[in-house]
Amino acid sequence: MISIDKSLQGKIICYIIGKIFFILEEIILKYRKDLENMPSYDGVEKDYRIKVNANECNLNLPPIVEERVMSRLSRIAFNRYPNYEYDSLREQIAENFSVDKEQILIGGGSSEIIEKIFYSFGGSRFNKIVYPQPSFSMYKIYAKSAEGVPVQFDLDDDYNLNVDKYISLVKSKKASLAVVCNPNNPTGNVLTVEEIEEIAKSISDIDCAFLVDEAYIEFYGKSSVDLVKKYPNMIVARTFSKAYGLAGARVGYMIANREVTKMIEKSFMPYHMNTLSLATADIVYQMRDEFQSRIDMMISERDRMSEQLKNLPQLKIFPSATNFLLIRYAKAIQLNEWLESLDIGVRSFGSNPYLENCLRISMGTPEENDEVFKVIKKFHDEHFSN
Amino acid sequence: MISIDKSLQGKIICYIIGKIFFILEEIILKYRKDLENMPSYDGVEKDYRIKVNANECNLNLPPIVEERVMSRLSRIAFNRYPNYEYDSLREQIAENFSVDKEQILIGGGSSEIIEKIFYSFGGSRFNKIVYPQPSFSMYKIYAKSAEGVPVQFDLDDDYNLNVDKYISLVKSKKASLAVVCNPNNPTGNVLTVEEIEEIAKSISDIDCAFLVDEAYIEFYGKSSVDLVKKYPNMIVARTFSKAYGLAGARVGYMIANREVTKMIEKSFMPYHMNTLSLATADIVYQMRDEFQSRIDMMISERDRMSEQLKNLPQLKIFPSATNFLLIRYAKAIQLNEWLESLDIGVRSFGSNPYLENCLRISMGTPEENDEVFKVIKKFHDEHFSN
Repeated sequence: MISIDKSLQGKIICYIIGKIFFILEEIILKYRKDLENMPSYDGVEKDYRIKVNANECNLNLPPIVEERVMSRLSRIAFNRYPNYEYDSLREQIAENFSVDKEQILIGGGSSEIIEKIFYSFGGSRFNKIVYPQPSFSMYKIYAKSAEGVPVQFDLDDDYNLNVDKYISLVKSKKASLAVVCNPNNPTGNVLTVEEIEEIAKSISDIDCAFLVDEAYIEFYGKSSVDLVKKYPNMIVARTFSKAYGLAGARVGYMIANREVTKMIEKSFMPYHMNTLSLATADIVYQMRDEFQSRIDMMISERDRMSEQLKNLPQLKIFPSATNFLLIRYAKAIQLNEWLESLDIGVRSFGSNPYLENCLRISMGTPEENDEVFKVIKKFHDEHFSN
Repeated sequence: MISIDKSLQGKIICYIIGKIFFILEEIILKYRKDLENMPSYDGVEKDYRIKVNANECNLNLPPIVEERVMSRLSRIAFNRYPNYEYDSLREQIAENFSVDKEQILIGGGSSEIIEKIFYSFGGSRFNKIVYPQPSFSMYKIYAKSAEGVPVQFDLDDDYNLNVDKYISLVKSKKASLAVVCNPNNPTGNVLTVEEIEEIAKSISDIDCAFLVDEAYIEFYGKSSVDLVKKYPNMIVARTFSKAYGLAGARVGYMIANREVTKMIEKSFMPYHMNTLSLATADIVYQMRDEFQSRIDMMISERDRMSEQLKNLPQLKIFPSATNFLLIRYAKAIQLNEWLESLDIGVRSFGSNPYLENCLRISMGTPEENDEVFKVIKKFHDEHFSN
């Protein structure tokens, strides 16, 4: 027989009683099937001295724009439900793309737009939603929460999307929705407008909706929006969070055929957008020319950083048409820890098998980029010389 | 044989060709089952000279509050994803109710809170959601969009909820979620805290979650929030849209047991709240004492209007513990048209059989209420003398 001293015996008894009470206290409610196993978003916002982990714009609004925004906000009826502000922004966007107002829907970031599109084409654990991997990590979560069947399409070793294979998968699965992210996050690479058109055309005969997530399009410049006029199964999602530096306001939009828009609109709550964000985005969109110089700056910074980093032999730098760079480095985990210790936040992909040893670095200001580069170079050179 | 003249023949041929092209053009995509038949919210916001149709607060923020809000907004990082603002508001609310921060969730108005609660307890066209009728018209829509089974509980002729019958229905249906709106919209009447407790207790043994929607609670004063500590199946939803005059910012919250909160949180998108609304609500909540005098004013205006309207013999005025009054009047439709023609907006319930000949009038400023009363009295007296 095993002898246990009295105090340990006491502790064990307390532990067992505690456990029993915990079980008794536990509340068993009838939740939606699978809610418990719903994965959570793995991004965490923390403050860093240099924050280049979330593909945000590292500059606040241009002063001339901020002044107009504040003046507009000071005239807001906080007490009234949103009214004409939604339509005002819709009309402005529609005019810019020469489409009808009814072809535009506005949501809380392109996140909500994508969530509602997935909802509209999901359901009943039957409708299949095809999306690339690695790509925006929320696609899988939105597919699951819409009770669709998530179908991953693997990008090749260089993170390129093989258009023929992609079309074959969508067709063989008889998918209800096919998604691409262009340029792709977190890999930075692109599909050409011709490739997008090939997909739109090829999958239209299986009545498959085709969502092109253009969150980073302003850094690439070659949008597929015009294809919406030709392919009624196409939907383009856009955001104010990246190039227009409005991540805090949560405003995104989609452009699609009228009939498609009308159906997706049914999935949105009444008053899903707030007046403050709508008014802010309205001014930002009116003044979007003011953002062009900083978009150009981010593009040139990205190219400059890419060239500099390519001089470090142990790093692989993936081509990027966005405001971030994806790098692969055998010592990525240690480098990330080193950066963290210096209060520099980049995005590490942890144990994601598709992004092994990868870090994603958003472009900050030139000064921030200089410091990030200097720190990476120092780390690299120290470990390279060993 | 019927003879048709040439031009009519031409028109018919054109019509048929047009129809064929329309059918060819129509896009058949694989939408979520039932999306097409999803009902839409029947409220429409219009500008009126006197707007008393949406239970809004008819005063914008108190100047001292607005000043602090604007000062806070001017320091916002528009370019950053929302970060500590969510937790800051959560902490403040938690402290006020002496609960843990983890017991609070914030959403886009209590609308989004309710939508996500329904989602969490819906699903698979199997989980039953019981809610009163007539009540907030969105309950049915949220139940359907969550793919739960909507189960209506009819209020009695005076719009009172029979607690025993309600409990019986919830139990016999083995519901996953039972909902009451207290005070009830659009009828204005209340359940006592004791009645709420009786429901919470009685349905806990069938593991049924119990949502108390307290959108109008500040005008009643007797909240059931403390019951959350005793009944882990209880959830209380609140909003900044009514008493705190922040309908435009879309901010609501819920208070529940930690475990329940943790599960419902899974149904929210990352960054579902925007920084501007969070910062605004944070200031408003800090300064909520500044709102007490206008809440008192709205209560006394409601009582004053109720007394005045009771002098009009053809009108039935329902008792109200909210910022609105429900009236029943045989000539409600004509009265509504008359008010519309004078650019006064009240809420009419059209063909809703539960609210036949009913109008809902929110309390405006004393001057607005005086005018509304004068107009109603004039209409009533003219038709009464006939």
